[in-house]
Amino acid sequence: MSRTRRTGNFSLGLDFGTESVRAVLVGTSTGEMAGESVQSYRSGVMDESLPGRSRVRLPPDWALQDPRDYLQSLKEAVRRVLRTSGVKPGGVIGIGIDFTSCTMLPALGDGTPLSAVRAFRDEPHAWVKLWKHHAAQPQADRATRIALERREPFLSRYGGRISSEWMFPKILEILEKAPKVAGNAERFLEAQDWVAWQLTGLERRSSCAAGYKAFWSKRAGLPPADYFKALHPDLPEIVSRKMGKTVLPPGQKAGGLLPGWAGVLGLPPGTPVGVPIIDAHAAVLGSGVSGENEMVLCMGTSTCHLLLDRKEKPVRGMTGVVEDGIIPGSFGYEAGQAAVGDLFAWLVRSILAKPDGPREEAGIFSRLESRAARLRPGESGLLALDWWNGNRSILMDAGLSGLIVGLTLNTKPHEIYRALMEATAMGTRRIIQEFESQGLPVLKLHAAGGLAEKNPLLLQVYSDVTGREIRVPRSRQVCALGAAILGSVAAGSPRGHGSVHEAVRAMTSPGRISVKPDPGRGAVYEKLYGSYCRLHDAFAPGGDTVMKDLREIRSRILADPKA
Amino acid sequence: MSRTRRTGNFSLGLDFGTESVRAVLVGTSTGEMAGESVQSYRSGVMDESLPGRSRVRLPPDWALQDPRDYLQSLKEAVRRVLRTSGVKPGGVIGIGIDFTSCTMLPALGDGTPLSAVRAFRDEPHAWVKLWKHHAAQPQADRATRIALERREPFLSRYGGRISSEWMFPKILEILEKAPKVAGNAERFLEAQDWVAWQLTGLERRSSCAAGYKAFWSKRAGLPPADYFKALHPDLPEIVSRKMGKTVLPPGQKAGGLLPGWAGVLGLPPGTPVGVPIIDAHAAVLGSGVSGENEMVLCMGTSTCHLLLDRKEKPVRGMTGVVEDGIIPGSFGYEAGQAAVGDLFAWLVRSILAKPDGPREEAGIFSRLESRAARLRPGESGLLALDWWNGNRSILMDAGLSGLIVGLTLNTKPHEIYRALMEATAMGTRRIIQEFESQGLPVLKLHAAGGLAEKNPLLLQVYSDVTGREIRVPRSRQVCALGAAILGSVAAGSPRGHGSVHEAVRAMTSPGRISVKPDPGRGAVYEKLYGSYCRLHDAFAPGGDTVMKDLREIRSRILADPKA
Repeated sequence: MSRTRRTGNFSLGLDFGTESVRAVLVGTSTGEMAGESVQSYRSGVMDESLPGRSRVRLPPDWALQDPRDYLQSLKEAVRRVLRTSGVKPGGVIGIGIDFTSCTMLPALGDGTPLSAVRAFRDEPHAWVKLWKHHAAQPQADRATRIALERREPFLSRYGGRISSEWMFPKILEILEKAPKVAGNAERFLEAQDWVAWQLTGLERRSSCAAGYKAFWSKRAGLPPADYFKALHPDLPEIVSRKMGKTVLPPGQKAGGLLPGWAGVLGLPPGTPVGVPIIDAHAAVLGSGVSGENEMVLCMGTSTCHLLLDRKEKPVRGMTGVVEDGIIPGSFGYEAGQAAVGDLFAWLVRSILAKPDGPREEAGIFSRLESRAARLRPGESGLLALDWWNGNRSILMDAGLSGLIVGLTLNTKPHEIYRALMEATAMGTRRIIQEFESQGLPVLKLHAAGGLAEKNPLLLQVYSDVTGREIRVPRSRQVCALGAAILGSVAAGSPRGHGSVHEAVRAMTSPGRISVKPDPGRGAVYEKLYGSYCRLHDAFAPGGDTVMKDLREIRSRILADPKA
Repeated sequence: MSRTRRTGNFSLGLDFGTESVRAVLVGTSTGEMAGESVQSYRSGVMDESLPGRSRVRLPPDWALQDPRDYLQSLKEAVRRVLRTSGVKPGGVIGIGIDFTSCTMLPALGDGTPLSAVRAFRDEPHAWVKLWKHHAAQPQADRATRIALERREPFLSRYGGRISSEWMFPKILEILEKAPKVAGNAERFLEAQDWVAWQLTGLERRSSCAAGYKAFWSKRAGLPPADYFKALHPDLPEIVSRKMGKTVLPPGQKAGGLLPGWAGVLGLPPGTPVGVPIIDAHAAVLGSGVSGENEMVLCMGTSTCHLLLDRKEKPVRGMTGVVEDGIIPGSFGYEAGQAAVGDLFAWLVRSILAKPDGPREEAGIFSRLESRAARLRPGESGLLALDWWNGNRSILMDAGLSGLIVGLTLNTKPHEIYRALMEATAMGTRRIIQEFESQGLPVLKLHAAGGLAEKNPLLLQVYSDVTGREIRVPRSRQVCALGAAILGSVAAGSPRGHGSVHEAVRAMTSPGRISVKPDPGRGAVYEKLYGSYCRLHDAFAPGGDTVMKDLREIRSRILADPKA
């Protein structure tokens, strides 16, 4: 199976996704992909029960993982990519990591995950809480409310709202629901930082995850202890004694590969391991962006909008701005749409798919796609507000919901499909407009991620709706490439790179697929976008309350079995 | 096959629907159903091409019928019901007719349909235009505009808008698109009047169809010749010379059965034939309603709301008010919802049904039904405006469209199904509210028609949403029963009845199914109805124009192949 031996310097990128880890070996001088290997997590996403023989059932909104899976899958993926790529172990000069976030766990002081301790094996709160574990919504709402009441300035860096996906709501959930876990845990940390700790023996925190998901700021530090105390009396002690203090920017060397791991992986001991980065944020680097005014859309089940700038500006409607969050010396701005790929999947899986299973899903998708592609803008007669999972940016309101208007007895599924695509494109245009109106011009637009790679129609719709050229990197694995870029930075000159900027320039290809707006389609979309904005404002907070009313009535009924 | 001989007096009701004619024999003293027979029209609804070997294709929005089918199907249905019911020919004392409307045709002076004349066989405009032939929309719009410009008072009897389904838009379409047909036609008439003419040899017009569909009023007559001239220079001559002048109320004797037809049908020559009635309006009689303050919902693909009153009040948002339109001496008020059964069929057929055919439709309907029945009010989290086919009442605006709000990634088809049911129920509540606010109290609510007979969940939703008891007649064929009632009135005393009131009292059963509102559900629906009304007004004319904008953009694009 082994290929020709490759010479030169390579960086190992480890891309920890929701279902699997991908290992890539990337040449540090030109960015060529020498090898790639994917290994699923043995227990995947646990959303119904704990793994193995455990009978413990999980409530809805839960999503856990087994931290041992990360190490096991990483071992197999790395060994395989070394074997199949023909890269000599000595050619691997550094290791970079990107990871979903906030994916967090409680651990002992030596790094042992609490879920690996026999006494806590049947305790759901002892396991890794995956980014999409949404059971901490009440805690998130309380954290927002109290921050507003106390006029905490940190909240403005997060667009005024704390997400249930973030670190502190998840810790609060453990404190409240499983005080024994909270009491016995000696560390609370991001899974990405835990993996780097396992590999290097040193506990470091990434400024990316700490900044975007855990209220940390390079200049302002953390919110005051009083705030944490108002959330829970035990929280200040957790913050001061059970969470890492050494926060470093992604790509800085976290440490050297421990001899034990070096043996297991077949790599030189001491190989530099970079401080990790969040997966969507790695896409910025993998897309070849390291400067200002270029927005990267990382498009998957949801979309992240990322933009770098030299200054900090409190932008309304963003989900976070973090200094050193993506690249040292820059402020990384993040906005988002909470349902994009998920929205299309909803139409196909929940509404259209046949009752007898998901096998036809791919067929339905491709039929919808080819029919939707033949529609001209405006031909469906439909317009939608893409808020099926709430509106993350620019309204920061998870209580909003989806709307379709223009339905007639002739409306067909592919017309709805296209209307949903257009709605997400208009949501992105609204975000760009908001950034620009607040002094952050978007001169170039890049798209990356699974949806961007697989869906040319979607890119054309985005280009036509925004009236902008959209650039898609030729590499299909921009997150993993971003991780490899960080590995080369951790290695440093002369074999690696002296800075993230230098590594991005060297390791990403300027050539990329470009989708340009069709000038004939602009006028209709201009008009439709006007209507979208009118509806947007009509149902935004301050407008008609029907979306909130419906949600509130529904929750009340679901909570009352006698209603 | 023949049953025991039945004695007594029976009326033959002929119910001409969209696809078939139903013949019933009903005892005139107690209303017992002695027999029933249905015969489909050979050519059904022609919406793709003319019948037989003709290659003539029809554009979208067209819907034609072959007038010979009415006579052929009537002959077979009547013969069969006589044979199987055991009623002796001499026991049949009268014939009543109900019919879809405005279903019209051009004919020669002797009653020969123009489509039966060899020279016009391949001319689509020579055939019967079925009620749902919608190609005369431009003519209808022009007729409305000119009536508004001229401030024609007749328009207020029709809620301010002329429908493309009515008589004059259809005549105008013939005048403009097929002047040869218009020139050669010697009569333009309702198919119901044509059938009665065939049976009796006398050309009479029903005040029901003339009033609701052709601008006629007992007191005001027709609009002035100048108005017709403004629509088309040749129209005044058609009105004065080619349309019947003898307008009689339904149930009055139109004439006696011609000997030729008596032989064909096996009935006594001279059997009284009553002046016909529109099918939905026959449901009022068949539901046992002949007095004031009782609204009948005739629920099928669309819903008609019918109410009798002794006075004429120009009610906003109705589709028509006609003196003698249903019962002599009363004003019949009509309002309507343009898509009800059609809306549920859209969800199942156009959105959910599997690509491999309509066989599973019934299964999908019954699954949706049982799941939707388990939902509590408000549990779906959805709210819809039921305007998929425009809003007939109370907004009289065919350019409006459907809207759903509250959609989430968890929304399921049965939740949408229930939301659509609730939306049509709220539309009906809005209509009742409008009637009541204008001095027409609705003290009792009746439901009839296919949807009411087959869908107990729908009735419960209507009852819960309106907060009213809903009565459903025990007879399943209320339209045909209404026709038979008119046949007994045409026969007159002593074998039949001296008045429609008397016949309704004698021939309908006071016992009926009653659906009562569940008091526990009222509060939630009260709240949801408030939201519905807010959305209703927000998108009504004068509110947000997005529905009109989308429709206008779509029409412009469809009209321009290069767009």
